[in-house]
Amino acid sequence: MTASPWKSPADRQKEREIKREAVLRAAAQAFNENGFHKTSLDDVAERLNVSKPTIYYYVKNKDEILFECVRIGLAMVEEASAAVAGSDQTGLAKLTALWRVYAQIVTEDFGRCLILVGEDPLPKEARKDLRALKGRIDKRFRSIVQEGIADGSIRPCDPKLAAFAAAGALSWIARWYDPRGPLSPAELADQIIDLLIHGVGAAPAP
Amino acid sequence: MTASPWKSPADRQKEREIKREAVLRAAAQAFNENGFHKTSLDDVAERLNVSKPTIYYYVKNKDEILFECVRIGLAMVEEASAAVAGSDQTGLAKLTALWRVYAQIVTEDFGRCLILVGEDPLPKEARKDLRALKGRIDKRFRSIVQEGIADGSIRPCDPKLAAFAAAGALSWIARWYDPRGPLSPAELADQIIDLLIHGVGAAPAP
Repeated sequence: MTASPWKSPADRQKEREIKREAVLRAAAQAFNENGFHKTSLDDVAERLNVSKPTIYYYVKNKDEILFECVRIGLAMVEEASAAVAGSDQTGLAKLTALWRVYAQIVTEDFGRCLILVGEDPLPKEARKDLRALKGRIDKRFRSIVQEGIADGSIRPCDPKLAAFAAAGALSWIARWYDPRGPLSPAELADQIIDLLIHGVGAAPAP
Repeated sequence: MTASPWKSPADRQKEREIKREAVLRAAAQAFNENGFHKTSLDDVAERLNVSKPTIYYYVKNKDEILFECVRIGLAMVEEASAAVAGSDQTGLAKLTALWRVYAQIVTEDFGRCLILVGEDPLPKEARKDLRALKGRIDKRFRSIVQEGIADGSIRPCDPKLAAFAAAGALSWIARWYDPRGPLSPAELADQIIDLLIHGVGAAPAP
């Protein structure tokens, strides 16, 4: 058989998905650097060396792009939380594993967009959908804290407050992390997670 | 002496300041609820039952309003940090006191605006000024952590990471705090600060 110079439908579909993700990623980077409102689709097209009509072949408008960027960021977190939830470890070990992935996510394009821009600029319906997804993820975090309290690996506390406090400490990385700094995201994450687990207070003298 | 029906210059100046703060506060509330870009000066005027020209008597434009809201939020944090820095306590006690005030600030109008909107939408020069102020405050937090490490009240750690982790945990309150919830800002703050000091991990069996 001679190889056809035309791509198969499956290849074409795959290529389209790769290009669409490139559009979303370039947009996320632009939003993260300059803000959603200060970014135009022309800026996104310029980052990819294509024309604006090309962008419209993959996405409807800027709102759809932001929706997708935030959704992908959330989907990454949800996937990590589902993987961890099904594992056979203590609550604290699950939480630590999840925090580590989460810290990594919020230093990457879609994760940073989730934290730095988020769903706020979107129309009501889109916001509602993304908030529902956020709500499910929040619940997952809380139930892991509850598990840890039940199995004795986590100190009795309000699971909602513990989950939010950690989410804040880790999400904040998106605001101040500088890839030119001395620590990698994984090293940062380990140190912050150590503080979350053991606290900043010196242990009382035995 | 008969009381003059005209106000003294000092009274007029004071009244002007009160009204200007009311404009800033109404704007901060609108920004926090609907976002900076979705808020117009008409919205702010409406909240105060005045006309837009009245607003312009107190502020130049929306950028100036946001600058002032963020600056006031930061000034509150700076004031608290200066008060604590001068006190005669361990580093950990200073840090705890400062965290408590900080948590309160980020549930109030200007503090919420500092976290939820921040300086990002502003022109370059304004951003630069506010970031310089933020930088000074960050340094203050870090030096208190360093003091605590030196006096043995805080466990050896990277002061920058510890300060940022806590800032994240506490700033995040601005995103999720709901005044209709069961806990007051002070109660929330106490529980989150307890987690920051002692960690979420159960103490190992003695």
